[in-house]
Amino acid sequence: MKKTSKLKQLFQTKNLEFLMEAHNGLSAKIVEETGFKGIWASGLAISAAMGVRDNNEASWTQVLDVLEFMSDVTSIPILLDGDTGYGNFNNARRLVRKLEQRQIAGVCIEDKQFPKTNSFINGHTQPLADIEEFCGKIKAMKDTQNDEDFMVVARVEAFITGWGLEEALRRAEAYGQSGADAVLIHSKRADLEEIEAFMKGWNSAVPVVIVPTKYYSVPTKRIKDLGVSVAIWANHNVRASLNAMQSISKQIFDAQNLLEAEGKVASVDEIFRLQGAEELQTAEQKYLPSGQVKRAGES
Amino acid sequence: MKKTSKLKQLFQTKNLEFLMEAHNGLSAKIVEETGFKGIWASGLAISAAMGVRDNNEASWTQVLDVLEFMSDVTSIPILLDGDTGYGNFNNARRLVRKLEQRQIAGVCIEDKQFPKTNSFINGHTQPLADIEEFCGKIKAMKDTQNDEDFMVVARVEAFITGWGLEEALRRAEAYGQSGADAVLIHSKRADLEEIEAFMKGWNSAVPVVIVPTKYYSVPTKRIKDLGVSVAIWANHNVRASLNAMQSISKQIFDAQNLLEAEGKVASVDEIFRLQGAEELQTAEQKYLPSGQVKRAGES
Amino acid sequence: MKKTSKLKQLFQTKNLEFLMEAHNGLSAKIVEETGFKGIWASGLAISAAMGVRDNNEASWTQVLDVLEFMSDVTSIPILLDGDTGYGNFNNARRLVRKLEQRQIAGVCIEDKQFPKTNSFINGHTQPLADIEEFCGKIKAMKDTQNDEDFMVVARVEAFITGWGLEEALRRAEAYGQSGADAVLIHSKRADLEEIEAFMKGWNSAVPVVIVPTKYYSVPTKRIKDLGVSVAIWANHNVRASLNAMQSISKQIFDAQNLLEAEGKVASVDEIFRLQGAEELQTAEQKYLPSGQVKRAGES
Amino acid sequence: MKKTSKLKQLFQTKNLEFLMEAHNGLSAKIVEETGFKGIWASGLAISAAMGVRDNNEASWTQVLDVLEFMSDVTSIPILLDGDTGYGNFNNARRLVRKLEQRQIAGVCIEDKQFPKTNSFINGHTQPLADIEEFCGKIKAMKDTQNDEDFMVVARVEAFITGWGLEEALRRAEAYGQSGADAVLIHSKRADLEEIEAFMKGWNSAVPVVIVPTKYYSVPTKRIKDLGVSVAIWANHNVRASLNAMQSISKQIFDAQNLLEAEGKVASVDEIFRLQGAEELQTAEQKYLPSGQVKRAGES
Repeated sequence: MKKTSKLKQLFQTKNLEFLMEAHNGLSAKIVEETGFKGIWASGLAISAAMGVRDNNEASWTQVLDVLEFMSDVTSIPILLDGDTGYGNFNNARRLVRKLEQRQIAGVCIEDKQFPKTNSFINGHTQPLADIEEFCGKIKAMKDTQNDEDFMVVARVEAFITGWGLEEALRRAEAYGQSGADAVLIHSKRADLEEIEAFMKGWNSAVPVVIVPTKYYSVPTKRIKDLGVSVAIWANHNVRASLNAMQSISKQIFDAQNLLEAEGKVASVDEIFRLQGAEELQTAEQKYLPSGQVKRAGES
Repeated sequence: MKKTSKLKQLFQTKNLEFLMEAHNGLSAKIVEETGFKGIWASGLAISAAMGVRDNNEASWTQVLDVLEFMSDVTSIPILLDGDTGYGNFNNARRLVRKLEQRQIAGVCIEDKQFPKTNSFINGHTQPLADIEEFCGKIKAMKDTQNDEDFMVVARVEAFITGWGLEEALRRAEAYGQSGADAVLIHSKRADLEEIEAFMKGWNSAVPVVIVPTKYYSVPTKRIKDLGVSVAIWANHNVRASLNAMQSISKQIFDAQNLLEAEGKVASVDEIFRLQGAEELQTAEQKYLPSGQVKRAGES
Repeated sequence: MKKTSKLKQLFQTKNLEFLMEAHNGLSAKIVEETGFKGIWASGLAISAAMGVRDNNEASWTQVLDVLEFMSDVTSIPILLDGDTGYGNFNNARRLVRKLEQRQIAGVCIEDKQFPKTNSFINGHTQPLADIEEFCGKIKAMKDTQNDEDFMVVARVEAFITGWGLEEALRRAEAYGQSGADAVLIHSKRADLEEIEAFMKGWNSAVPVVIVPTKYYSVPTKRIKDLGVSVAIWANHNVRASLNAMQSISKQIFDAQNLLEAEGKVASVDEIFRLQGAEELQTAEQKYLPSGQVKRAGES
Repeated sequence: MKKTSKLKQLFQTKNLEFLMEAHNGLSAKIVEETGFKGIWASGLAISAAMGVRDNNEASWTQVLDVLEFMSDVTSIPILLDGDTGYGNFNNARRLVRKLEQRQIAGVCIEDKQFPKTNSFINGHTQPLADIEEFCGKIKAMKDTQNDEDFMVVARVEAFITGWGLEEALRRAEAYGQSGADAVLIHSKRADLEEIEAFMKGWNSAVPVVIVPTKYYSVPTKRIKDLGVSVAIWANHNVRASLNAMQSISKQIFDAQNLLEAEGKVASVDEIFRLQGAEELQTAEQKYLPSGQVKRAGES
């Protein structure tokens, strides 16, 4: 099955499904091996891994290069956190073509303005996109895709920016009518209040996605019962990675040796395994001349 | 002080100094914050993070793009693990120019053939470079650098490939005479036998670097006493990261919630701090029009 | 029809067909508009346009980025001049996957060593690839392709490097037996002697391609009669471009005005036409809000 | 002398100086060889060469990659046509750092909105940037540069977008006061009326640059007399190139041979010369082992 069809299917089951964040080839591979059915290519995580801010400091093609590595080593679908689409409708539709070439299954765009700011940084001061402009962007993206199962998810930032339920619903409906395959309703509250209100008012025209980063303590059962289709664990691999690297760096710096560190990190062989070193050794047997190996000093 | 001068200085102290691995902007920043004086941009770690093999599957400019992100967010010097220089002398000298543009302080090249294989994978079957060819490569690189403090480190793979002490010393001497600013003597033994023999036979013309990945249990004091200048903790950030991501991914997958995960990972605010979000907020006050923020619905 | 199938078909007609060189999106578009059925993405032309040498100074992914622009604006198939495959069989098969993602229809690899040198620069001093190694590379590439019509063309450099007919035929046969979809027999002679001899000795197992850069004065009829399938006009767009730019630059430099220049160059509107400016204006009508245009001074 | 200082100097002479367009390494090299003192890295020409529109369809890092090739092969300064700075002040100041790493001497930004549209396409419908926002962008760029001679040129699009002289002067003055090292006043008229009016009203605080693409028939003497510092021949190399490639492609397509073409294009040797093939041959003598050349069939 195509990756796009896998992603679409995942949004259409009656169950609550999950996407797990990845930000490079390694984490993408780990997410797949763990058993997840899909990957969230997080803008925050990708920018953090690069060492830049989540404000479109990396160019969209630099993000694309990361995505290509992620897609190449996985068979589960990737949904890109595509910020605002990196410009207007024309940039966004160009993005769709580039994503399809790299077998990315879908993209989520948010109704803010380029360059974007992370939703958890002074969200209430952030301007929303003009509704009509954003709907045009969605239409342009849907009109552009070659693969009918490629997904465009519209992220509603009305709660984040301090607007209320009415604006959130008005926008979600407009986005669905413009062709969005799902809406992502984002909230920075520690409780479920906004999401709950939204789900009660929602016309269910298209599936709903949520990102419980801030309301992590809400039981998943409650989310399920609201009729949410997909929950995204949005940045936990990069955060685990950050934590682990700070910790091991400090331990080794202080100890000035590897004695204790060795037991705390994955083995070098585990890296080789994830990189697929074995397949290459088999291939070398198959494709390299038998007498390939030379001794030093021979020309 | 220039990054190149910092790196050079670090090789010229009488102490044993340490470089810590990083493979992207985030890990580079962490290494600097931890207190390390220099960064080892590991080929294994960079390829692993990308999800490809340590066999020059990523192009040299893709590696360069990663290095640029690493260099941009750090003030300590970076020594690139530059494999074989990605081709012949001409590719290697072109690399030097590209590294200097990105303020990378030095590069280590190994005396194997392009495309290389990781030294810990069937090392004894790997062909060494022709000595004369490798010395020419070193000369070309030294002749090319604009900044006199840029370092070219020559990595001797004689032990790795099953050659003995004599070949190791012969090569190290030739590389030093060709202009290498240091030699890296690599060993895959779990003990210090090869390194010890090498140091006893070494003419001390240039500083010696080691990579104790396999002989991690050897006390650092012993390495110090041999007169080694620099030890590289070569891949422990990527290995810590891998371990942590496998673990958190599995925990979240099994739990289907974030309750336990939240306490195990770095906070989102810690990511923002490392990305320098605060500086941008200050800059926005300074450079954006005061009435910039608009409300939704306004055109 | 897929681009790969178009290219394959072009090799299988009984006629002599032609590929025309292009080296960027603009020239690719021109080649298609002119009526050619296929494009030769020349390594010499691409490197020359970049301002680097035809010695793998540009990385293979930098070449790939150029190809992606070329492929995006054309519907006729592109055959990449892929040098030696940019490394060993593993690099070459990775290349195939990357080319397929970008809808490149095929790749030609030559039996020399990485990094390569242009065939017209001291060809006789250039070492050939080991036959067995090169055959393994072809097999690996054919085993890797997803699209059965993707073409791997094997370029025989035996004449270029000073070997004779026997070696050329021996290699061409071996390459065909290893799965090559066609062989390209290259000659730097000003006459047809080598090509003629080759065609007479050829077993016709796979189609033959030639590149008459040096024997440009030979009538095409003679080439046709030999049974050659495809002739490549290999670098004439970049050479025309170089000539024209030297000429216009000098004219404007000397005149210090544009009076005479204006009549000698394409109009700005012709650039807009080739870029597809009109489609975007139509799309703006469709996807942008009607009141989008603002007047200066308005916030 | 640094490239930045060369560019600065060029703006400070009493003479009218000229920049010539280039869009890749090859054209940049030609511009330098012709005798020009500086290069205009045109957004229109770079996008056209790529085959995309002049609407920020190529990412800013894709443009950067082209610039790096251009800068690497030239010693005269390059002024980048940097559109709107590719986003807000933060994107623009990031751009400055990236340009300095690549020894680009300066950048010109225009007071429109991202994504931009070419000034000659329905210019009067294009919205201008908010003045205060644009001044903040200039300040941020000037505060960011490390090299004090790096130039930021502010392009005034008031005439292009249908505003009059007053707005043009108001903006130019504001930009100069914000730190712009020069202003570029753009006009799409076929005569000099707007430029003349501007120069008469101009306070001469900073040098003025013009782009006589549309008023090509105006004698240069008249421009000189107005006190203009720099005139840019903005797109004539790409237009010459386009013209020549259409012409040679058609000629070869029709003729099905190279007989006539050969005399109309630059020689292959001229390409080699521009690529610097000779230097590499000398370097090979110096850095490659003497017995490097092998014969086919040898392992």
